[in-house]
Amino acid sequence: MAYLSRDFDVEGDALSRLLVRNNESSKEVKTSVANILAKVKEHGDAALFSYEQQFDGAELTSLEVTEAEFGQAETLVPDALKEALGEAFVNILAFHQMQVPQDEHLEVAQGVELSRKVVPIQRVGLYVPGGTAPLFSTVLMLAIPAMVAGCKEVLLCTPPDGEGNVHPAILFAAKLAKVKRVFKLGGAQAIGALAYGSESVPKVDKIFGPGNQYVTAAKIQVSSECCAIDMPAGPSEVMVVATVDADPAFVASDLLSQAEHGKDSQSMLVIQADREAGYAFLDKVEDQLSLQMQSLKRQQFLLSSLGHSHAIVCPTLKKVAFVVNSYAPEHLIINTTEPEKLEKLVVNAGSLFIGPWSCETAGDYASGTNHTLPTNGWAHSYSGVSVDSFIKKITIQKLSREGLKNLGRTLETMASQEQLMAHKHAVTIRLESMK
Amino acid sequence: MAYLSRDFDVEGDALSRLLVRNNESSKEVKTSVANILAKVKEHGDAALFSYEQQFDGAELTSLEVTEAEFGQAETLVPDALKEALGEAFVNILAFHQMQVPQDEHLEVAQGVELSRKVVPIQRVGLYVPGGTAPLFSTVLMLAIPAMVAGCKEVLLCTPPDGEGNVHPAILFAAKLAKVKRVFKLGGAQAIGALAYGSESVPKVDKIFGPGNQYVTAAKIQVSSECCAIDMPAGPSEVMVVATVDADPAFVASDLLSQAEHGKDSQSMLVIQADREAGYAFLDKVEDQLSLQMQSLKRQQFLLSSLGHSHAIVCPTLKKVAFVVNSYAPEHLIINTTEPEKLEKLVVNAGSLFIGPWSCETAGDYASGTNHTLPTNGWAHSYSGVSVDSFIKKITIQKLSREGLKNLGRTLETMASQEQLMAHKHAVTIRLESMK
Repeated sequence: MAYLSRDFDVEGDALSRLLVRNNESSKEVKTSVANILAKVKEHGDAALFSYEQQFDGAELTSLEVTEAEFGQAETLVPDALKEALGEAFVNILAFHQMQVPQDEHLEVAQGVELSRKVVPIQRVGLYVPGGTAPLFSTVLMLAIPAMVAGCKEVLLCTPPDGEGNVHPAILFAAKLAKVKRVFKLGGAQAIGALAYGSESVPKVDKIFGPGNQYVTAAKIQVSSECCAIDMPAGPSEVMVVATVDADPAFVASDLLSQAEHGKDSQSMLVIQADREAGYAFLDKVEDQLSLQMQSLKRQQFLLSSLGHSHAIVCPTLKKVAFVVNSYAPEHLIINTTEPEKLEKLVVNAGSLFIGPWSCETAGDYASGTNHTLPTNGWAHSYSGVSVDSFIKKITIQKLSREGLKNLGRTLETMASQEQLMAHKHAVTIRLESMK
Repeated sequence: MAYLSRDFDVEGDALSRLLVRNNESSKEVKTSVANILAKVKEHGDAALFSYEQQFDGAELTSLEVTEAEFGQAETLVPDALKEALGEAFVNILAFHQMQVPQDEHLEVAQGVELSRKVVPIQRVGLYVPGGTAPLFSTVLMLAIPAMVAGCKEVLLCTPPDGEGNVHPAILFAAKLAKVKRVFKLGGAQAIGALAYGSESVPKVDKIFGPGNQYVTAAKIQVSSECCAIDMPAGPSEVMVVATVDADPAFVASDLLSQAEHGKDSQSMLVIQADREAGYAFLDKVEDQLSLQMQSLKRQQFLLSSLGHSHAIVCPTLKKVAFVVNSYAPEHLIINTTEPEKLEKLVVNAGSLFIGPWSCETAGDYASGTNHTLPTNGWAHSYSGVSVDSFIKKITIQKLSREGLKNLGRTLETMASQEQLMAHKHAVTIRLESMK
């Protein structure tokens, strides 16, 4: 039995059909989210408490995590995890510190000084999903760039469990990355709280982080109204490119690690080879999928994800690059003989993993790159989260008397040709004052 | 008669009410736009031709501007404008060339190499509004950063006149900034064509540019579906900060130049002074508004815009900064005794104009800064258009055998604590192969 569909040198519409994602959130989700957002906007904390009871089964008396809870978390996290988080923190911090942009300055003409100053977004909200496992890695991936950017206030929302507790590893990671305020809020109501503010939660300027389809729909809705978001998110995905000399066990393990994320995940495999050799290699990968799956959990996710994943054999590097850039994968693993050749040709992807030892797990956790990446084809236009996502650049100009005098005629000509006479007049009145 | 409302040292809710913008697009606009987008998606060129007839009164036989039309445009643009565009081009180019980011590289730990490579967004669509005047300046402001970023394909849409012609100055500016393909398309249908593609218009990855409420609503709708946008736009606005030693004529001219943009524009004035001196200065500004308006056109726009604009007198620099950062103006003119003091405190604004000679007109046209800026309070989270808007940064990691060996235990610990066993397994299978 084969887990992946297989095609050789497929082109045109047939290729497009293989590369399409089908995961638009349903109309029901959008309507439900719109209702939740409206209630949060109108009723604030009262709505938040009520939704937390309804959706997370938590009877909360306060939305914000207390100092005592932070303190207790520290005692509950195992030492091995503390150590691992420490190593991840150092690497993520180093990679993001390299990203801080400098102010720019230029005297473009005599008396015309231009600059850009880098300013952190003042108040940001981070969303960390709950669900089956505590995603402390996402805490680091969002909070470290916010810290490096210098954001003045960093809030974090994450759903509590049925007892109203946040997982200690989440709180430990938050404290490590200097997040001082954590709120017990999940789903669309968390996004509403961050976007509109409530009695307990301050309104933020921008919201970051992954989530299920309710969270995603809520982020999209507030993003056109009042609050920026990092990116429109979708189910996670990987594309593995292999040549037939790659280890089929490694390739299979990478496909499976993506597939376990959820039932909508996608694990695509592109093999650079002729048809016969490519299909023979694919058979070996299939054997490994079968073998490795036996020891894994989350079988339903694995089977569902692989069920809408595809293998494509391409005869040339050029074709491989075309497939990659058309799909624009969130994660691209290049496990080929000469990975740098493909690396140079990739223009649409979130993050690249080069060679046999660069498994996606490395970037997901601790190598230092950010794991919040554009999915669903958005890598055509978006970058992953970085320090850039937490800053703004404000342009500044300073013209001297001489500067305006020199530029004046050009400004008057352009303004009058655009029939904006008040624009022209603001120049003319100044030029006349010089006489 | 006073054009501007006036308040002294206003705080809290009263201040919030003064600073609020009321310009959400109506439900009717959204529904109408959704219909247009759906038709364009389904019927492609046929829908585009039909809408151009309906909305621009143009009977087109072809959507794309021809070489002959480009050639003719060159003969129709007056020399004075060509010269002015040339000077603007040089300044805008210089400022944007300074913005090109470098690739980054870091060996974060032994055998763990991380980098970010800068890649242009491959295909971008620029929208230039039609209406009462040819906005050739917007052509330069969008096309020059696209050119500097190295975007592979740059398309431009602008509505034709009733004869099916595009204004020659638009075409001349497009050619100057290396735009090769211009389409005669306006409104929501132009945004639909760029987002979905049609027989004539290739689908783009990201859409840039200002527009009326239909264009804005269309951009927002496609931005959650399939195509990125520069930012959610709104009516243009200025905030002028003055001390009482400023020239009231200059201040009034700046308020008027913003007010002429349209009936929804806003021209806010903040005066740093005590109550008596501030109101006395405001009286002089009002006199100048009255005087200067007599010689201007677009009286309806001027009166409407000033009608929902406000003057606020603040006794301290700290209060001024609070008002500025709360409003987050698109344009901020600082015409005060010591402008640098306020400049340092500004964290929410699109673009700053420092001192008496830096009128907004300079940045609108030719000093070199970009005039596509966040309006409607979006300067809390967005920057103006720059080269950054036309690029992506792809992260890359390359682990050696040694690199993965060193990082392996941390990865296994984190993956297993997040209960992602396939993630752990992708590491384990590699570590075991090393034995």
